[in-house]
Amino acid sequence: MTVSLQPNGKNETIPTDMSALSSQPYKGTRDYYPEDKKRQNYIFSVWRNAVQRFGYEEYGAPTIEPLEVYAAKSGQELANEQTYTFTDRGGRVVAIRPEMTPSVSRMVAARRQELAYPARFFSIANFMRYERPQRGREREFWQLNVDIFGVDTMRADIEILTIADTIMKDFGAKLDDYKIRINNRQLINFVMAGYFGLDEVQGQAMVKLLDRKDKITDQDFVDQATLIFDAASTNLFEELNKLKALIAATTIDELPEEILATQAATDLKQLFDALAKAGVETAVFDMTLMRGLDYYTGTVFEVFDTHPDNNRSLFGGGRYDGLVGLFGAEPISAVGMAPGGTMMENFLEVRGLLPDFTSSAAAYIVVIDGQNDAADSLAKFLREKDINVEVDITERKLDKQLKTAVKKAVPFMIFVGKNEVETGEFTLKNTVTGDEQKLNFEDLVDALR
Amino acid sequence: MTVSLQPNGKNETIPTDMSALSSQPYKGTRDYYPEDKKRQNYIFSVWRNAVQRFGYEEYGAPTIEPLEVYAAKSGQELANEQTYTFTDRGGRVVAIRPEMTPSVSRMVAARRQELAYPARFFSIANFMRYERPQRGREREFWQLNVDIFGVDTMRADIEILTIADTIMKDFGAKLDDYKIRINNRQLINFVMAGYFGLDEVQGQAMVKLLDRKDKITDQDFVDQATLIFDAASTNLFEELNKLKALIAATTIDELPEEILATQAATDLKQLFDALAKAGVETAVFDMTLMRGLDYYTGTVFEVFDTHPDNNRSLFGGGRYDGLVGLFGAEPISAVGMAPGGTMMENFLEVRGLLPDFTSSAAAYIVVIDGQNDAADSLAKFLREKDINVEVDITERKLDKQLKTAVKKAVPFMIFVGKNEVETGEFTLKNTVTGDEQKLNFEDLVDALR
Repeated sequence: MTVSLQPNGKNETIPTDMSALSSQPYKGTRDYYPEDKKRQNYIFSVWRNAVQRFGYEEYGAPTIEPLEVYAAKSGQELANEQTYTFTDRGGRVVAIRPEMTPSVSRMVAARRQELAYPARFFSIANFMRYERPQRGREREFWQLNVDIFGVDTMRADIEILTIADTIMKDFGAKLDDYKIRINNRQLINFVMAGYFGLDEVQGQAMVKLLDRKDKITDQDFVDQATLIFDAASTNLFEELNKLKALIAATTIDELPEEILATQAATDLKQLFDALAKAGVETAVFDMTLMRGLDYYTGTVFEVFDTHPDNNRSLFGGGRYDGLVGLFGAEPISAVGMAPGGTMMENFLEVRGLLPDFTSSAAAYIVVIDGQNDAADSLAKFLREKDINVEVDITERKLDKQLKTAVKKAVPFMIFVGKNEVETGEFTLKNTVTGDEQKLNFEDLVDALR
Repeated sequence: MTVSLQPNGKNETIPTDMSALSSQPYKGTRDYYPEDKKRQNYIFSVWRNAVQRFGYEEYGAPTIEPLEVYAAKSGQELANEQTYTFTDRGGRVVAIRPEMTPSVSRMVAARRQELAYPARFFSIANFMRYERPQRGREREFWQLNVDIFGVDTMRADIEILTIADTIMKDFGAKLDDYKIRINNRQLINFVMAGYFGLDEVQGQAMVKLLDRKDKITDQDFVDQATLIFDAASTNLFEELNKLKALIAATTIDELPEEILATQAATDLKQLFDALAKAGVETAVFDMTLMRGLDYYTGTVFEVFDTHPDNNRSLFGGGRYDGLVGLFGAEPISAVGMAPGGTMMENFLEVRGLLPDFTSSAAAYIVVIDGQNDAADSLAKFLREKDINVEVDITERKLDKQLKTAVKKAVPFMIFVGKNEVETGEFTLKNTVTGDEQKLNFEDLVDALR
């Protein structure tokens, strides 16, 4: 079987050999069977509930966008190497969205005049990135995106971070299960240029080094920092000590005077004070937090899992004041974040925080003696009372129907046979305990509610 | 700006000129702003509620699949001309899913042994087709997919059709708002070959002609039917009359004896009888109903809008017993359908059946005299009681905050100023009526619930 793709997107040949169709999903993507989808829906519902308490409104955006939307500011690796990019049948170069921020920025730009500010937006959507699949990282993944537009003070940053903490608490996470690490892009810039006197190349090298800090040994870190400082520094020992002190700081107050005097430090101070008032006890300052996306302009943060087996970033966000302006509108300030579904699922799984899920149906109607009509009538009656019921429509033997009800984990079974139809009393059986009651139509409604 | 796509999916050049970024979505796709998303979510919730009453369980599938999944059975036009097809960075030829049926069939095949039958599955997902955009037809669209696997009797067809009718009723549609037109692929085959004695080429021509019947004049229809019959028929007048009689039939009983004797007619008879018992009053037989997808093997149906300005198919479905078997598993019988979101929205809009939607937030907290802390405390208190509130964090003048609350259509405003903080009594104002009350924290909870 060969298929070649022409530049205009039309196929030369379509495969016709059907014997080899695989039943596996495309590499790095996932089939969500009902038990998987229930977990995902649970995560979605906790997200939705949390952001709606803060008045955020749901939106949706297209799955594909012109490629240049991402080339603008998403960072070179994401835009160049990780997007699913192709040319459509009309010759347009498009990409399957690898993230939501450019799309929602585009949408805000398009209705800049009509929107009411602060505009509080959220979405729950899927994205694709061409990456090597690994635990918690899939080629197709789901994210909540929460963004607030039109507020240039720290009040917006505070709100987004409060929501991040609220989401973790709503999932049942305890205070020592996670940390919110916070930094600021302006502060990073000042530290590199003003505080250490590094030039742009050195500064970028240092940013990359700090970003990698947890992945290399302390000795490697010192060696590489030494290489970066070498050319600019007259006192290497002092510079390294200053760097170590910055890295060790977990509150703003630990920073040296020179850094504390900057607007960025003042902003961070306001942010931490407000978070403390809002009951967010998990926020720490972290000079090594960088965030890869090019569009961040102020606060950056990441929620870290503190579990020893899963010590990594769960999700992050920050302020990106310049993105809306790229779409032909005046700039509009923005702060946002994007928790991911699978990452969250792993976090909850490791800690046993996922609840038990039941079947859609409250009862499974087992049909005996060919009493299809009676079973259908009962089902109709119960459904009109908003009770979810499944009917066994297979006309199989009793034992097979029972096995199916158990396998589906439906909480109750209702037996409909000749005897039941004659007496008007139906056996309701608890699938787990085995308890049975004989009930008429109306009493079944009460029992199943 | 030029971008060229290499066969390996890597870009030669990435656009860097940002001055021209458009704020419009990709052609044929739609930005769902909150007011649009609320309508969509309403449609999704009615769908979900209806299918869960019948015990269907939600699943999810990847956005992209190997192209051959669609080449198999989706019909040549859909697979060859309408898919978004491309080669990924690893050389795999993939397509953005244009429909769900092949994906869910693949998933069932992969877990053929483990699943409990009847397996009742549903999903609500997005799809892409490269079509000329027009009213109700978009390049990206959302569909409910409802499928039952493992039941080879008409009991499955009856259930799916009952759900189709239930969905329409749940949306508030009246009996004369829609018709469910039903036909059967086996019956069509018999009519072409056995009843009219047409060969395969003629039969296919006749199927296409019947499918187009409502789009051409009666005279054109007769002319083209004459051309098809010409070669095979010895009595053209009689053949045309037989054809007209078939087209005019709206119940099975009107069919001639010869057709009634087939298994397909017996199946249809059972289906219509059961639908009548189930309270489905909108089902009619329609010999012109064909359905374009190649995988249907038995019952086919479409729900038609009867509105004079919108007289067309809202959605359809049918039996497709052969599809699961293409994925390396034994065949498993299947019946399904796929209502579309935009089509449904148009239907509801034309009839005024869409409800009014409110904002996520129940109240908008207007902040006066710089009382940010008090406003935040009140918001926190209300949110902990599961009341959704939005705080104006802009520190703007009162009139601008009021305008925003009205523009966002939040039902209530709460004023937080120095006076309110001192007295512990906050003004709750109904945004629509203008009515005001002075309430403390606890009474605000009661008033907003």
